[in-house]
Amino acid sequence: MAERLTLHEDPRSGNCYKIKLTAALLGQPLQTRQYDILKGETRTPDFLGAINSNGRIPVLQIVGDEAGGKSARFLPESNAACWYLAAGSHLVPGDPFEQANLLRWMFFEQYQHEPNIATLRFWLRFVGERNLSDEQRMLMPGKRAAGEAAFALMDQELADKPYLCGHSLTLADIALFAYTHVAHEAGFEMGDFAHLREWIDRIEQTPGFTPMS
Amino acid sequence: MAERLTLHEDPRSGNCYKIKLTAALLGQPLQTRQYDILKGETRTPDFLGAINSNGRIPVLQIVGDEAGGKSARFLPESNAACWYLAAGSHLVPGDPFEQANLLRWMFFEQYQHEPNIATLRFWLRFVGERNLSDEQRMLMPGKRAAGEAAFALMDQELADKPYLCGHSLTLADIALFAYTHVAHEAGFEMGDFAHLREWIDRIEQTPGFTPMS
Repeated sequence: MAERLTLHEDPRSGNCYKIKLTAALLGQPLQTRQYDILKGETRTPDFLGAINSNGRIPVLQIVGDEAGGKSARFLPESNAACWYLAAGSHLVPGDPFEQANLLRWMFFEQYQHEPNIATLRFWLRFVGERNLSDEQRMLMPGKRAAGEAAFALMDQELADKPYLCGHSLTLADIALFAYTHVAHEAGFEMGDFAHLREWIDRIEQTPGFTPMS
Repeated sequence: MAERLTLHEDPRSGNCYKIKLTAALLGQPLQTRQYDILKGETRTPDFLGAINSNGRIPVLQIVGDEAGGKSARFLPESNAACWYLAAGSHLVPGDPFEQANLLRWMFFEQYQHEPNIATLRFWLRFVGERNLSDEQRMLMPGKRAAGEAAFALMDQELADKPYLCGHSLTLADIALFAYTHVAHEAGFEMGDFAHLREWIDRIEQTPGFTPMS
């Protein structure tokens, strides 16, 4: 495809990193344009009007050559952007059950993993504990317990196979690696999760791997 | 495929309904086995051991005929189960961008729609407002505002097209219809969202449509 890919991102975001790691593992060139979410740079009228009316990053911008000239399309949601890059590659199995099972882990990531682990990391690492609201403080123990439950489930799944979907790395691993490998920044102790720690090492040794900036 | 499909479900759950609606629109037979989540029937040792170690429904069970006999596989996560049923059908576009854009709405559903709208519906309709904890009560205004923001985004998206991904019904509509069409049970006023109300009517008139039980 004659298309140019630009990732609208905040480099501190694990959701943005997922997309960069997918592109790196596939050898796909990806330009980036950076925003500071703490300064509200994804809530400006320009961003809301042209990039994403939902006011969030990441957004993958796809510019293609068409008969009538250039066309630009925008894809929000980190896991959807990963899917766009990786569909048809070795990172997405073709077997119907295996493909649905991969998506199972990506939906789990957005529902049970990211809202707990990424949110605690954002609060503790970037907002700062002393700046949290009373409501945020009250939510912390529940998010801590739910994050630990998500890790326990992953650790159990990885007890008898090297990757979440079996014998090879897929998008499911990339999606869940992003915030798992920086869970210490969210205050999680990973000592009990031996399979998870081995899985992190395994992914970091993948040819083409790129670290989070 | 010579396979038998069984949905492990609680009929009150919109996440379970998504799968039944997908199967109905595709004319696929689907057996069901029912659990009462309020009685903890998805947290029993039997359920955790045999059906889903995450202790949640829905789970789609797929029994196939194989050379050595029967095999049973289990697929948790509502949207992954919908994908398994619908991949390759008219409910999932084949174009790479359109397919990723469909998933964009399904991830949005799990991240910004379901945790607000489905949770408020569960608390108000099934747990009962008087039985809520202080923490749940404190979370209600935030979930109310986030649910309204999700509806506003969908309403804006539907202003110039009949379905979320364009001119035809896809899994994105099914995933987001499930809890949107019962949002009144979660205390939402839908009067401001004219495009959303028309979209609900449109989906209910689809040949093969089945209502939530």
